[in-house]
Amino acid sequence: KELVFYFHDILFKGDNYNNATSAIIGSPEWGNKTALAQPYNFGDLVAFDDPITLDNNLHSPPVGRAQGMYLYDQKSIYSAWLGFTFLFNSTKLVGTLNFAGADPLMNKTRDLSVIGGTGDFFM
Amino acid sequence: KELVFYFHDILFKGDNYNNATSAIIGSPEWGNKTALAQPYNFGDLVAFDDPITLDNNLHSPPVGRAQGMYLYDQKSIYSAWLGFTFLFNSTKLVGTLNFAGADPLMNKTRDLSVIGGTGDFFM
Amino acid sequence: KELVFYFHDILFKGDNYNNATSAIIGSPEWGNKTALAQPYNFGDLVAFDDPITLDNNLHSPPVGRAQGMYLYDQKSIYSAWLGFTFLFNSTKLVGTLNFAGADPLMNKTRDLSVIGGTGDFFM
Repeated sequence: KELVFYFHDILFKGDNYNNATSAIIGSPEWGNKTALAQPYNFGDLVAFDDPITLDNNLHSPPVGRAQGMYLYDQKSIYSAWLGFTFLFNSTKLVGTLNFAGADPLMNKTRDLSVIGGTGDFFM
Repeated sequence: KELVFYFHDILFKGDNYNNATSAIIGSPEWGNKTALAQPYNFGDLVAFDDPITLDNNLHSPPVGRAQGMYLYDQKSIYSAWLGFTFLFNSTKLVGTLNFAGADPLMNKTRDLSVIGGTGDFFM
Repeated sequence: KELVFYFHDILFKGDNYNNATSAIIGSPEWGNKTALAQPYNFGDLVAFDDPITLDNNLHSPPVGRAQGMYLYDQKSIYSAWLGFTFLFNSTKLVGTLNFAGADPLMNKTRDLSVIGGTGDFFM
């Protein structure tokens, strides 16, 4: 079975609180909370609350939310570590699907481990 | 088989270090380390070292510790993401039980994924 | 099957950026980003990008990278919570292996849960 979802992340940059879906909450000594650390964002930790949609359109009606964190964790290129959950609470699907693992951003496609599920995704 | 445990969290608020079992360690630009960010604590990351007891009494003898983190990760209601471990080292149980996933706090009961175990909880 | 790997962590202390493989990115109110919090580093969150080698020598050719985070999460002794990934991209191995769980540092050896894998480590 295949499920296709899109989620959309808009990072808080100091002046876009209402619009933002994520915010830097941890950063290295050389970073701050309103701009990603240079180089390669290494050490930035971001909390996110992103809408999930069925097509690649931020303004489509959300079918759930992707919530959790991403951490930029490579000094020499862009790469991240993800810990997050898809939360669904609709007439069709109720439950959560949990993910964790590396997100090597320079690869065109990435696989990510499902580490558990609840409700309709119980495993 | 059913196990029933309670764990108890007392957040550091600036003047209760000895008593506290947890502390804010990450927060968004509009937050700080001694009070939860408003609204809905979004972006607060908390490290915890909580006693586990067999009944709903903070002062009962601990049978283990729940250690890890919780992250408030929703802008519009209270919700969190958990990554933590139960650590047991008693005459009855030795080992760890690892959990991760969403904790939708507005739901009266929540399920959480077990993502692994060691020692007596090896899986 | 047994795999033996070593990984090497050099924490940023304020003046060793080039050499460092990790950095404090979150800390409690009484901590900072260039020195571990006292006592027992409780509440320090560290992002790491560590070389993996086949022997216990930091200067051996890396065969991959260990990337993610560790969180010191006990007030009374040294203990941590780990969420990280081994990333391999060599002629022999391509893929990632994801880990999460407690790292009770005072124990001479520790077991850690594998929570997923991709590529050659798909599970």
